[in-house]
Amino acid sequence: MIVNGKHYKTVWMEGSKVFLINQNKLPFEFEIFTSSTYGESIQAIKTMITRGAGAIGVTAGFAVVQAAMEAPSNDFQAFMTRAISAINASRPTANNLFYATKKIADAIKGLDKEWAVKASSELAQQLALENILEAKAIGEYGNSLIKNGMSIETHCNAGWLGFVDYGSALSPIYTAHREGKKMFIYVDETRPRGQGARLTAWELQNEGIPHAIIADNAGAFYMQRGEIDMMIVGADRIAANGDVANKIGTLEKAIIAKEYNVPFYVAAPTSTIDINCPSGKEIPIEMRSEDEVLVQSGLDQDGNMKSIHVAAPGSPAYNPAFDVSPAKYISGIITEKGIVRACEDDIRTLFD
Amino acid sequence: MIVNGKHYKTVWMEGSKVFLINQNKLPFEFEIFTSSTYGESIQAIKTMITRGAGAIGVTAGFAVVQAAMEAPSNDFQAFMTRAISAINASRPTANNLFYATKKIADAIKGLDKEWAVKASSELAQQLALENILEAKAIGEYGNSLIKNGMSIETHCNAGWLGFVDYGSALSPIYTAHREGKKMFIYVDETRPRGQGARLTAWELQNEGIPHAIIADNAGAFYMQRGEIDMMIVGADRIAANGDVANKIGTLEKAIIAKEYNVPFYVAAPTSTIDINCPSGKEIPIEMRSEDEVLVQSGLDQDGNMKSIHVAAPGSPAYNPAFDVSPAKYISGIITEKGIVRACEDDIRTLFD
Repeated sequence: MIVNGKHYKTVWMEGSKVFLINQNKLPFEFEIFTSSTYGESIQAIKTMITRGAGAIGVTAGFAVVQAAMEAPSNDFQAFMTRAISAINASRPTANNLFYATKKIADAIKGLDKEWAVKASSELAQQLALENILEAKAIGEYGNSLIKNGMSIETHCNAGWLGFVDYGSALSPIYTAHREGKKMFIYVDETRPRGQGARLTAWELQNEGIPHAIIADNAGAFYMQRGEIDMMIVGADRIAANGDVANKIGTLEKAIIAKEYNVPFYVAAPTSTIDINCPSGKEIPIEMRSEDEVLVQSGLDQDGNMKSIHVAAPGSPAYNPAFDVSPAKYISGIITEKGIVRACEDDIRTLFD
Repeated sequence: MIVNGKHYKTVWMEGSKVFLINQNKLPFEFEIFTSSTYGESIQAIKTMITRGAGAIGVTAGFAVVQAAMEAPSNDFQAFMTRAISAINASRPTANNLFYATKKIADAIKGLDKEWAVKASSELAQQLALENILEAKAIGEYGNSLIKNGMSIETHCNAGWLGFVDYGSALSPIYTAHREGKKMFIYVDETRPRGQGARLTAWELQNEGIPHAIIADNAGAFYMQRGEIDMMIVGADRIAANGDVANKIGTLEKAIIAKEYNVPFYVAAPTSTIDINCPSGKEIPIEMRSEDEVLVQSGLDQDGNMKSIHVAAPGSPAYNPAFDVSPAKYISGIITEKGIVRACEDDIRTLFD
């Protein structure tokens, strides 16, 4: 991704430091957050300085490396077990987090500190690189579904910022755009945190792709009028049967898209697939603070960030962060290995 | 409705002045807005100081009375024709507006100024009173659908504030509550203007009814889990075939409710039914300013009202204010004359 004429990744590691585009400051301010310890990296995931399944996974991998660097030489393995538990507890839904920490945990099992630092660092950097290459491949496969002149709706942000680069749901759109295809993107604002209005719209501006933000309520209005040709969303976890956990509201869109015969694609690397999870029923759903619904932040007229209470003071809110879309609503899953149907037979072929 | 221990109506007229609960200030400030001219009343409808089909209709009726008072004695009828056109142009979707202005226009046709002021005033006051009685009757009919212990979801605000009192969608809930039935209300925040989070939640607090605000995205999540027993919404216009125009997002909920076999009721007085409108396709849908999506207002930490930009600066937004739910998704229409199916045969019986 190019921001202000310079190439960036969403997350990268140098020495013992992890660098993250601060997604809580975007789109109003472009700031790089520096995490110096694994504890700070956990906090960065919890507070959503970094977010999106892919970016969470890579950040978690780097956090394991930081933990290895911070661990005492004696009692190293016990420290790492506790540290990896803490990293795994930062957010419950995205599979990529557990995929990354497990890969590294397996690789450093039995190693002493010096070797473990070296091995974890190499593996975490490799996972970050793979994340980029997978996202790029998703873009190429997904591009085959996009015809010139299409209007595409997307929910939340599964773009650059949800990965190390390129993204999942937005990657096919970027590939198509670079090939010269014309598109118009309907961007669900994605309440309560507004990742669509804030992050996806910001990415599309940077890429120069025509778009409009719509209230999440307006999706069916445009589908009913035949103005949406396709929907592409990302995923936080995909069960073996093809059920997809993704940002709250994805389920509504999946049902509505089916109702209006709008193809509904999910784009995600195979690291998002939890092949040991039989169906969506087993995916844990994170409940987040009611303040995300009740309080909004943004720029006031003087250009300062302000938080305001937007609901009736005293009324509580419920805030599930994800929902599960049953496989029957999904037209296909776009992975770095190709496009498959959302069913166990097809999904298993990705792991052969 | 009782606010701070005192009985209020949402809109009333005394002398030449129309008094309105200022719904742009709620829930943060309870203020009565005074409109002294029909032009000010038009502005109050346009800027949504008053909103909701019933309240718009009654305010429009009072605006016609103000126009009659302001009109010159000579050229009276021509002035009124122009004034009523301007009132009708204030908002395009709610049928109650046209119902009220047409009723009064028909009554004053051919009258001179003195008689017209008297006739319009009596008729507008009668329409306001009918609005209350109809809302109360809707509450009684709708109450028959509510069982003790139910969880009910509602969208937007079709409560006290959308009518002169009681409301439509919320009136059955208030009647059930006063009878001692326990309920829990899921309140869709109703982006972009947040009438659920701001107005419905505020009303439910005043009535002491347990509730939680949810992002509009979360409706399907709770229906999938079987946690919603019924949905009740209001309407801005109902076509002869039972199609219902209501706040943007109603269509999504209607489709999802059908998918999960959740009964989906529309509550509205017969003045909301446009029997001359064959289907939802003919209902004009208002497009409102993109700022309603991009800018949010609320209370800052010091208790001052602030507006902030919540989306990527420079990205545009589309903002349809209403959508049309086809009759096939609607379990029934709760009117002041009883509950009917959403089909032409049943709807016509209401006009016999």
